[in-house]
Amino acid sequence: MEKNYNQLAVKMVLNEWDRQNAFFKRIIDSLTDEQLAKQISPGRNTGVYLLGHLVAITDSIFPLLEAGSKEYPELYETFVDKPDGSGGPVPTIADLKSKLSAVNARMEKVSAAMTTDAWFSRHTSVSAEDFQKEPHRNKLNIILNRTSHMSYHLGQLALLQKQ
Amino acid sequence: MEKNYNQLAVKMVLNEWDRQNAFFKRIIDSLTDEQLAKQISPGRNTGVYLLGHLVAITDSIFPLLEAGSKEYPELYETFVDKPDGSGGPVPTIADLKSKLSAVNARMEKVSAAMTTDAWFSRHTSVSAEDFQKEPHRNKLNIILNRTSHMSYHLGQLALLQKQ
Repeated sequence: MEKNYNQLAVKMVLNEWDRQNAFFKRIIDSLTDEQLAKQISPGRNTGVYLLGHLVAITDSIFPLLEAGSKEYPELYETFVDKPDGSGGPVPTIADLKSKLSAVNARMEKVSAAMTTDAWFSRHTSVSAEDFQKEPHRNKLNIILNRTSHMSYHLGQLALLQKQ
Repeated sequence: MEKNYNQLAVKMVLNEWDRQNAFFKRIIDSLTDEQLAKQISPGRNTGVYLLGHLVAITDSIFPLLEAGSKEYPELYETFVDKPDGSGGPVPTIADLKSKLSAVNARMEKVSAAMTTDAWFSRHTSVSAEDFQKEPHRNKLNIILNRTSHMSYHLGQLALLQKQ
């Protein structure tokens, strides 16, 4: 019988997510509020926007995993639907940091409760028909994609460290 | 019998690597040589350095996968061991782009030849003893880690697009 690596594969993907999240926390903790308010490069997003953006994206994973609705839909509006500096109300940095802890704690709880079969099941934004043809479009793949997305923005946030 | 997702899990990780690599190519193709020569942010790495860095890192994966040695060890010296602007000879952008294609073609060939069991086997920089305790430190995990690493720098390279 072929060896079964299901659980190990899930663990690897979740580990990488955790690793990038720990890195995210280290970067955020290393930056002052003044640094976070700066643009990562002239004319580009501010650190605050990227912080809010990453909190909103993590929060938007739960519905895809069939694990309930977004906790902070207003963050999605401000930090995903709208570009930086669009003039609406922006939460304080302390508020965003506390929401970052909250979405991460929720993700940990949700992850711990998911079975391996659930991870490899279809996520809610792919149809049953498409999923049959493309079984890699499962819930675990959402975590894989969102890890790359987080890393992409971490490379930008890290630029604020010497500004 | 529990369903076996081994092959699917491997495919998902390789897909994400390919997706980020395709994105890398799109970013590089969108930049002029002049833009690539610029720093991503004042005092930080140039686009050329990051291009060379990512080629060198991909090239350094092959030994870890027991798939032969680095093809361009000199790139590793220039773009990983040494920081940007350390004064040594730097290849041309055209040369780096051609080496990027070469390492990606080699990776595709190596990947196609690897069995699922090989992907989940220990990579060469972890000891047999440690691997027994930490079976996630396998060859597939290298691809997972290096995908995050690539995304991190893509977020930075993308900043050159409007400079």
